[in-house]
Amino acid sequence: MRMAELSRRTGVPVPTIKYYLREGLLQPGERTSPNQAIYDETHIRRLRMIRALAEVGGLPIAKVRDVLDAVDSPEIPFEILGTVQHSIEPPSGGTGSEYWETARERVAKLVLDRGWRSNIESPPATTLIAAVASLYELGREDLTAMLERYAPAAEKIAEYDVNAVTRGRGLEDTIEGVVIGTVLGDAIFGALRRLAHQHATAHALGVPDEYKVLGREGE
Amino acid sequence: MRMAELSRRTGVPVPTIKYYLREGLLQPGERTSPNQAIYDETHIRRLRMIRALAEVGGLPIAKVRDVLDAVDSPEIPFEILGTVQHSIEPPSGGTGSEYWETARERVAKLVLDRGWRSNIESPPATTLIAAVASLYELGREDLTAMLERYAPAAEKIAEYDVNAVTRGRGLEDTIEGVVIGTVLGDAIFGALRRLAHQHATAHALGVPDEYKVLGREGE
Repeated sequence: MRMAELSRRTGVPVPTIKYYLREGLLQPGERTSPNQAIYDETHIRRLRMIRALAEVGGLPIAKVRDVLDAVDSPEIPFEILGTVQHSIEPPSGGTGSEYWETARERVAKLVLDRGWRSNIESPPATTLIAAVASLYELGREDLTAMLERYAPAAEKIAEYDVNAVTRGRGLEDTIEGVVIGTVLGDAIFGALRRLAHQHATAHALGVPDEYKVLGREGE
Repeated sequence: MRMAELSRRTGVPVPTIKYYLREGLLQPGERTSPNQAIYDETHIRRLRMIRALAEVGGLPIAKVRDVLDAVDSPEIPFEILGTVQHSIEPPSGGTGSEYWETARERVAKLVLDRGWRSNIESPPATTLIAAVASLYELGREDLTAMLERYAPAAEKIAEYDVNAVTRGRGLEDTIEGVVIGTVLGDAIFGALRRLAHQHATAHALGVPDEYKVLGREGE
């Protein structure tokens, strides 16, 4: 198909497609003349992946490229996961916190207690330590108890995730599943948790059923 | 205390404190001369909250202001939660997806099935619908099964969250807890899930214990 059809079928505007081509995120089409190229289903799939990562996952273009490079590499899924984790991890400030060491020990203890074979030096561990250090800084050590309450749920979900992406399909699907599951899974769980907060708050505060929960249609 | 001490005690540089004062995020100190003001513990607490939201939660300054405005307002916690959710929700692209309606029905069904009194028009619902629409677009309808797997965990965690922040302490602490719990809780759960992915992947792929999980100290 021509670029116009690629644009129509994916909903990505032509200038954006050209931008992705220039940036090397989208593989070039097959050239049919100096000014024309044709594209196929692999381009549609790739464009949808870029959209998912950039628009829904909220990754900056440079990180989308890192993730796609990992997808294209011949690494095994285990290493892909590491690369994806490195790529998507949000920058965590606060490594200079006076509570950093305390928070680090707190997180290390959790990992040890749960018997997780997880790397305390990896990007997600750093994000976690920064968040826990923040709780200490805010004088809310009481809230660090959420670690023990969240961990079993995280464990169960992670097991399910890994099963879901390694089940049966080929390597390409597995890798794609790791990328999608990691990026979109975060967005999905976070949104579910916030939706559940609405329900739990309505419940705890005894808000009557007739009260339209957080109704803000008027805005 | 003077601004220099405020800076020392919080680790926030003086120019940054001045910026927060100019932007109205930090309340002014008590003026003792035209060029000097003194600050107290409330300023320390507020600065730490700003840091937590901006550096750990990753919120842009404009959103930090929205959240702090909500904290300062005399609204009830239930409404604060709505404001905070509105403020922190990441922008979700893809509302124009051809799968939007399908995804919306999928999410509405989930909320109904679980009996959640949650608002399908609220920002977290929109985020969720966008993510689910992405899964359909990517041809990974199979992965939407994660909704049913994640929802009970999200529900349990949300109940715990709401109990943790409404337990005993005064209104100010409750409001602060809602803000911290919503913003940092997301960061904490996401990081725990990614750490648990390392463990689950090592387990599923039979990576030997000696293999340092995702060891990347050399980088």
